[in-house]
Amino acid sequence: MTDFREVGKRAKAATVSMARVTTAQKNELLHALADLLERESAAIIEANAIDVENGKKNNMPAGLVDRLLLDTDRIKGMADGLREVAALDDPIGSMESVTVRPNGLKIGRMRVPMGVIGIIYEARPNVTTDAFGLCFKSGNVCILRSGTDARYSAEAIVKLIRQALSEQGLPEDCCQVLLDVDRESLLEFMQLKEYVDLLIPRGGAGLIRNVVENSRIPVIETGTGNCHVYVDASADLDMAVDIIFNAKTQRIGVCNACESIVIHKDVVDELMPALKKRLDEKNVEIRGDESVRKSVDGIVAAGDDDWGTEYLDYILSAKTVSSIDEAIEHINRYNTGHSESIVTSDYNNANRFLNEVDAACVYVNASTRFTDGNEFGFGAEIGISTQKLHARGPMGLKEITTTKYVIMGNGQIR
Amino acid sequence: MTDFREVGKRAKAATVSMARVTTAQKNELLHALADLLERESAAIIEANAIDVENGKKNNMPAGLVDRLLLDTDRIKGMADGLREVAALDDPIGSMESVTVRPNGLKIGRMRVPMGVIGIIYEARPNVTTDAFGLCFKSGNVCILRSGTDARYSAEAIVKLIRQALSEQGLPEDCCQVLLDVDRESLLEFMQLKEYVDLLIPRGGAGLIRNVVENSRIPVIETGTGNCHVYVDASADLDMAVDIIFNAKTQRIGVCNACESIVIHKDVVDELMPALKKRLDEKNVEIRGDESVRKSVDGIVAAGDDDWGTEYLDYILSAKTVSSIDEAIEHINRYNTGHSESIVTSDYNNANRFLNEVDAACVYVNASTRFTDGNEFGFGAEIGISTQKLHARGPMGLKEITTTKYVIMGNGQIR
Repeated sequence: MTDFREVGKRAKAATVSMARVTTAQKNELLHALADLLERESAAIIEANAIDVENGKKNNMPAGLVDRLLLDTDRIKGMADGLREVAALDDPIGSMESVTVRPNGLKIGRMRVPMGVIGIIYEARPNVTTDAFGLCFKSGNVCILRSGTDARYSAEAIVKLIRQALSEQGLPEDCCQVLLDVDRESLLEFMQLKEYVDLLIPRGGAGLIRNVVENSRIPVIETGTGNCHVYVDASADLDMAVDIIFNAKTQRIGVCNACESIVIHKDVVDELMPALKKRLDEKNVEIRGDESVRKSVDGIVAAGDDDWGTEYLDYILSAKTVSSIDEAIEHINRYNTGHSESIVTSDYNNANRFLNEVDAACVYVNASTRFTDGNEFGFGAEIGISTQKLHARGPMGLKEITTTKYVIMGNGQIR
Repeated sequence: MTDFREVGKRAKAATVSMARVTTAQKNELLHALADLLERESAAIIEANAIDVENGKKNNMPAGLVDRLLLDTDRIKGMADGLREVAALDDPIGSMESVTVRPNGLKIGRMRVPMGVIGIIYEARPNVTTDAFGLCFKSGNVCILRSGTDARYSAEAIVKLIRQALSEQGLPEDCCQVLLDVDRESLLEFMQLKEYVDLLIPRGGAGLIRNVVENSRIPVIETGTGNCHVYVDASADLDMAVDIIFNAKTQRIGVCNACESIVIHKDVVDELMPALKKRLDEKNVEIRGDESVRKSVDGIVAAGDDDWGTEYLDYILSAKTVSSIDEAIEHINRYNTGHSESIVTSDYNNANRFLNEVDAACVYVNASTRFTDGNEFGFGAEIGISTQKLHARGPMGLKEITTTKYVIMGNGQIR
């Protein structure tokens, strides 16, 4: 049994040392760890082989086994990821502004680490180094809970992380891993508000719901995306076909993929035959309402459940509306606050869509697939937040920090 | 029985209209409401008299009855508060920056309302107009739950708010009030994640704990402050006495009052007699450790409980330390993340205190009593956040908003 309070206490204690680590020391550690991972790749691959073997024994689907598997190339990818994080600007210690009050008090808002961050994820070994790298660069101590299907890989990788920390004279407890922690005991961990400042779940809808519903530690909700593309009456229809094809099929299993399209009634008959033809290239099943089905052959009838479903598959729902108001209303009812796009040539409709659609990322004339830390120019991301509090949209280093006011006086009293 | 889902649905529906309200319309409404409150002060005072009478019947302490009581002066104060909010900059719609990506996508981060905010407070009638004013100016719809001891006052005030909204052609449901809602049914309200985007509890520790522990809606924790002043070995001791006297006694019932002092052992014998003499002017009881008690007569022995206690009274605990490290460790152990101050002449110790003390506001050579939206120059505040997520320290209009990314393209795909 893991003593979570003990883990929490050790993490909290490590934050004191983290407060004194310079940017140069952080970058040195990240490079040293990258080198160490490559040098010790044989040990990582050996541990990973146990996870892969267990996965196969337990009839893990081939896609998941592939995601779990590590080889020297993939380990080099993890190491390069750490080097990229080293190249990012360090947000800690900077001040957005310092104002001087009439009484002479100087008030600044300084960016500081959150403290201790817990990352709960599934059987993806690369998340272990990714999450550590981002937490460490932003001055945070992390507690990682890997999916149990990757426990030997996670154990081997965290051993190397702690070795690198120790070799650089930093506390090993800047990174701890929870192994063999089942769902039941995870509940207990999620109550440790006293020691853990933030929890970030990374994974499927079930994992995220479990954390959001049960955690007493503040959570940043990442994840599910029931993303729409709305084709306005004034849309360039060739552009609409390109954007929908890209947003639906470029990668189907991701949260920023398009799951549903909304079409103005005036263009449904012209759009659908061309769109159907294009989507047929990837055998996409279209589930439409009556107007959509009348516009072209081969459309499946959509049921009420379709509007709210994130398929993560070669399936797309299609709904007709008679105005932009109806489009916005439908999207605000069914979207999950992720990414929404309008294809239009109308200035007012573009502005109304940007202002009135309630989501982390709202697009005009572009694919929803751009919602991503790298595509936004943040360099690396820890996830995409679909909540409104604290962070919304792709989260870079800054989003896993907080601020404090520092006030410099010379004896001021009220 | 209040149908909370119905209240939530109506609030959510009102957010659609709020998205289209201009700053000029907001300011017009706030001024019209201020005038209406003054014009209808007789009706408010009549309703308030019922609350006051009930309070007296139920043996409400005199201090609370006074806080509950409204007269024309206090109503004018509430109206002036709304006029001050009208004068604040409207944060909605502004963009911090717009960047252009290599592919031509323009990415901006636009400030937008949270949506629906629930404010749960105690028997303070002025909070009803304060909270509505700040929520409305920041484009949010609010659901107010006044303490039951002020239910008739809250009902009368919200009736006028809704009348003003309606007269300006705005939906009345921009402001709803929950009346006769006991603790039990409040639990039910706090589950409405689907309709309410944010809950802010304003009041005593019990109220806040109840909301933080039971809400499934995201909460901003405001409140309790176990604030310290640390007197360093290098401190100007006259300044230390002035700052401690001010921070302890200027107003005792507030969260930014000093509750505990920490003294370097080298100055305890010189500091304490002068400090004791000064605090005697207000009959402050000092509870100290052994060194403090040796330094001057009349100090009560501190128990272990004293270090973690927010007295909100003329009581002060005093602890001796032998280094700044010990001071920071003690403060980080017992503080509630509110406001902490060091009195020092030493450059390095000032910087270490600012960097290493974990609190919303950290001071050098100034009273903790400055932690306040007005003192910081924000113009008005909705509370002081002691959490790290989303908002930390005094919260102005900006802290009850969120952002969304708006992305403008001309056909970009990945």
